[in-house]
Amino acid sequence: MTQIFDNPADFADEALDGFVAANRGYVARVDGGVVRSTEVPGGQVALVVGGGSGHYPAFAGLVGPGLATGSACGNMFASPAAGQVYRVAKAANAGGGVLLSYGNYAGDVLHFGQAQLRLNAEGIETRTVTVTDDIASAPIDQLEKRRGIAGDLTVFKIAGAAAEAGLNLDDVERLAIKTNYRTRSLGVAFDGCTLPGAKDPLFHVSAGQMSLGLGIHGEPGISEHPMPTASELAQLLVSKLLADKPEGSGDRVVAIVNGLGTVKYDELFLLFGKVEKLLTAAGLTVVEPECGELVTSLDMSGLSLTLLWLDDELEQYWAAPADTPAFRKGSMAPRAARAEAAIVDAETADVEQSTPAAAELGRQAVAMLAQVRDVVVEHEDELGKLDAIAGDGDHGIGMRRGVDAAAAAGEAASGSSVARILLAAGEAWSERAGGTSGALWGSAVIAAGQALGNRETYSANDARAAVSAFVLAITELGKAEPGDKTMVDALLPFRDAFLTELDGGAPVDRALAAAAAAAELAAAQTAELRPLKGRARPLAEKSLGHPDPGAVSFGLIATRISHHIDSLLASAASAAPAGNGA
Amino acid sequence: MTQIFDNPADFADEALDGFVAANRGYVARVDGGVVRSTEVPGGQVALVVGGGSGHYPAFAGLVGPGLATGSACGNMFASPAAGQVYRVAKAANAGGGVLLSYGNYAGDVLHFGQAQLRLNAEGIETRTVTVTDDIASAPIDQLEKRRGIAGDLTVFKIAGAAAEAGLNLDDVERLAIKTNYRTRSLGVAFDGCTLPGAKDPLFHVSAGQMSLGLGIHGEPGISEHPMPTASELAQLLVSKLLADKPEGSGDRVVAIVNGLGTVKYDELFLLFGKVEKLLTAAGLTVVEPECGELVTSLDMSGLSLTLLWLDDELEQYWAAPADTPAFRKGSMAPRAARAEAAIVDAETADVEQSTPAAAELGRQAVAMLAQVRDVVVEHEDELGKLDAIAGDGDHGIGMRRGVDAAAAAGEAASGSSVARILLAAGEAWSERAGGTSGALWGSAVIAAGQALGNRETYSANDARAAVSAFVLAITELGKAEPGDKTMVDALLPFRDAFLTELDGGAPVDRALAAAAAAAELAAAQTAELRPLKGRARPLAEKSLGHPDPGAVSFGLIATRISHHIDSLLASAASAAPAGNGA
Repeated sequence: MTQIFDNPADFADEALDGFVAANRGYVARVDGGVVRSTEVPGGQVALVVGGGSGHYPAFAGLVGPGLATGSACGNMFASPAAGQVYRVAKAANAGGGVLLSYGNYAGDVLHFGQAQLRLNAEGIETRTVTVTDDIASAPIDQLEKRRGIAGDLTVFKIAGAAAEAGLNLDDVERLAIKTNYRTRSLGVAFDGCTLPGAKDPLFHVSAGQMSLGLGIHGEPGISEHPMPTASELAQLLVSKLLADKPEGSGDRVVAIVNGLGTVKYDELFLLFGKVEKLLTAAGLTVVEPECGELVTSLDMSGLSLTLLWLDDELEQYWAAPADTPAFRKGSMAPRAARAEAAIVDAETADVEQSTPAAAELGRQAVAMLAQVRDVVVEHEDELGKLDAIAGDGDHGIGMRRGVDAAAAAGEAASGSSVARILLAAGEAWSERAGGTSGALWGSAVIAAGQALGNRETYSANDARAAVSAFVLAITELGKAEPGDKTMVDALLPFRDAFLTELDGGAPVDRALAAAAAAAELAAAQTAELRPLKGRARPLAEKSLGHPDPGAVSFGLIATRISHHIDSLLASAASAAPAGNGA
Repeated sequence: MTQIFDNPADFADEALDGFVAANRGYVARVDGGVVRSTEVPGGQVALVVGGGSGHYPAFAGLVGPGLATGSACGNMFASPAAGQVYRVAKAANAGGGVLLSYGNYAGDVLHFGQAQLRLNAEGIETRTVTVTDDIASAPIDQLEKRRGIAGDLTVFKIAGAAAEAGLNLDDVERLAIKTNYRTRSLGVAFDGCTLPGAKDPLFHVSAGQMSLGLGIHGEPGISEHPMPTASELAQLLVSKLLADKPEGSGDRVVAIVNGLGTVKYDELFLLFGKVEKLLTAAGLTVVEPECGELVTSLDMSGLSLTLLWLDDELEQYWAAPADTPAFRKGSMAPRAARAEAAIVDAETADVEQSTPAAAELGRQAVAMLAQVRDVVVEHEDELGKLDAIAGDGDHGIGMRRGVDAAAAAGEAASGSSVARILLAAGEAWSERAGGTSGALWGSAVIAAGQALGNRETYSANDARAAVSAFVLAITELGKAEPGDKTMVDALLPFRDAFLTELDGGAPVDRALAAAAAAAELAAAQTAELRPLKGRARPLAEKSLGHPDPGAVSFGLIATRISHHIDSLLASAASAAPAGNGA
């Protein structure tokens, strides 16, 4: 509903004042509407548009170089009075005559018509082109009886560009007539809009229904339909418009998907994507389309599709620059398109040839990831229950989703270096697990892989670097401190034990066993902590006496990896005189 | 509600595809988001923004020269995964390093942070500036904990312009930090938004209430208030933001009124007008403001006010050109401002010095308008009842409103020429009466006045011209044919009788008497007609046997004017030997 106002009776007037305040570089207020606040070259045709208020950016939002010279602004959904049109046209006139253009509604025809009589009587040559794009409002043999809806934009844009190019009134009028003749629109409504101060919408469409061809002020439509899918809606609009194709049209079209107010951008884009595919399939080329809110009806729920059938002349003026509060084209000098292949290359530019050592370590990493998956699967329920005590209970399922994806991604990358395999695994983990712990695990796995890199040989120092990078990724990203009752409370004892053992001359497998034991012990001890950060914070008291699920799962995984390496070493020792293990 | 889709699960992805289809000149799709489809100068800093989908034009709509280089696009209201951010940044990178910038939400911090680690590890120098503009989300001494809302735009715009200007990563980062530090926003919500496929909105605000500071995904606000007037709302937002002014700020500010989705343009402008007045009253100068939908939340009902406290450096980059799907600046070369006086002059440029003869005729016109008012007042009820038989019954009241205004306007213009008086009267008539008959009468009165002009002398030929112009205005504008059962069925017999009498040598008063009699007769005869146009068409059968109210009122008015002229002539004849009457 429309609800930001002081007094509903002043709504249109105060809104127009605010519009001018927000756009002083473009427009100046005159009695009856707005005109450009910047110089108009002498002798240029003045394009004066207008209609009721409540349709922004139509009509005042389209005033500026390359588009309209002025806009007559009526009350909400009501034609401006003839005197308003007249005064706006007088202020807009730059000596080249005036073209009045507006949607074909009885009230507007009368008032703009009266202003035209008066302007002509005063010697200001004035012509009129009404916009009649709505194919729902009359059959094709009564084009002149059709209403104007979002097709306003094509007619105004091309007439405005022609005026900007210095064409005379005859030519600007001719182009506007041709554009109108080649513009077709069809709209649908899902619900009505509410005028300021009104208790109820102007009209309603039944819930779950769509009205095809309903006018922007609730004028009757063609038919009611159950709410279609986006694909069905695109098909309906495109087929009806193509059936109403103007004579002599070519195969290049401007397509405009216009939102009436509360059908929002993502929805409009989604529909546009489907419309473009259908038009392309019909052999048409879509040229400089528009998708957004271009002719609205306050908070009406609805949208329309417009097609303008171009020829060379119309395409030139459609593409020309314009600079208005709501419609701008040609902001900066055109830039060369980037080759699509270059974009894809840049996105994926990390081709490598794995060294034998890094490939061997990669194979071990794939096997380790399978172990990690197994231990998580075994403990999924337990971790979930532990998390449910003082959290949302999703730690088990989240870890499960993450390791499943990570193990599969690692497997899929088999044969690559350890860095590539852990990268693929870490990415998959963080993307599929969701949530904080997924992002932390994913980052840590990637960081460990990056630390291991793609080297010719590996030593215990690389294990040191990998563990340090793993831990650093989690502490940097998660920003938890020791004692906050998070995974970090198991992680730091793990790292400290691992590095101490290595420093004391222990081999990697012994250091890992000691570190895993330290992690499990520390995880158990988190039961005494009160959470300060992370999942359990809101229910701090409840978590006392229970260990942190993130610390527990880390301890379990560390232990499983340690055992796995032990069993690898054992089988290597029985099979060969000397190993090359991590 | 969000309702245009095939399958809700594909919504974000299909919407992004459609966005790219509608904006191929700007963006290319990559795995995880979009990057510019045009060349980026080598060595330019790449600004990579992003966040959840559903906030268009944030974030993908801001990709283009002078603004962002790429955008990572998550699912609806969900952070993009780290791998998405990483791939977008890789594709956006032009060799000058990467600045990641996004609103300060936990998920985004994690995922963008992970991507940053990975990019830096690969040797692509990457920095991060999170946007923390929402003053409702944490106190001023915890700036780093605040959420990002519409202030995203100021930070992105200035960082993007700085990158475009060729500044290095240090400077682009420094400017982004400074802009964020000097940007403050506060939002209000009136109701929540509905995710695609969801039955209910994400959150609700009670009817008639407003939640101050509620986050764009329903995060808690500061307080609830009864729905304020626009003036109260402007006061609330401005006072809270001014109380949170950054240290060292000057007196030039960018003001941004942002709509969240269903608070529409006229409402936003109305609020902006009040905000600008308050800021000006506080001694601030508002520089290049924005008012529209810049950071949305699907169909959320809400809005926010953002202030960016400029310094010279920030103002330069805020004002720089930009060319993206949703944000464009500098479309055409700047044009000189038009002097305000020139606009007002043009609008009102019809100063005249009335001739004595035209002034005398003007006095007669004022008296005639009073007579017209009297006859309409006398017959108002009768005309209303006649119209109610087959119409909406408003002909009496509509004519009354019109003639009341016309007579008063004519009176107020006393002393002017007959042309100016009838112009004022006709304008007032058509503006105040409303509807078709008001516009027709207003136009006809103006046209008669224009035919009479401002001459040195008047003759019977001028009366002929005035009557002809009066009739022509109605037939041209109304487009009714004889027999359509409208006012025209009395009007044409009136004109024909008047011209025939004049051609036969009758004086104006005799010709008018004959014409008025013809009009009354013809009006009565419309009872036999079946309406083809105008008010009675929908109820054609009912109107048979009753004359057309528009024809009747015209006949009554013609007769009263004729009688009035007769009485004028009679009194002139008794007072002076020879008259100079029309």
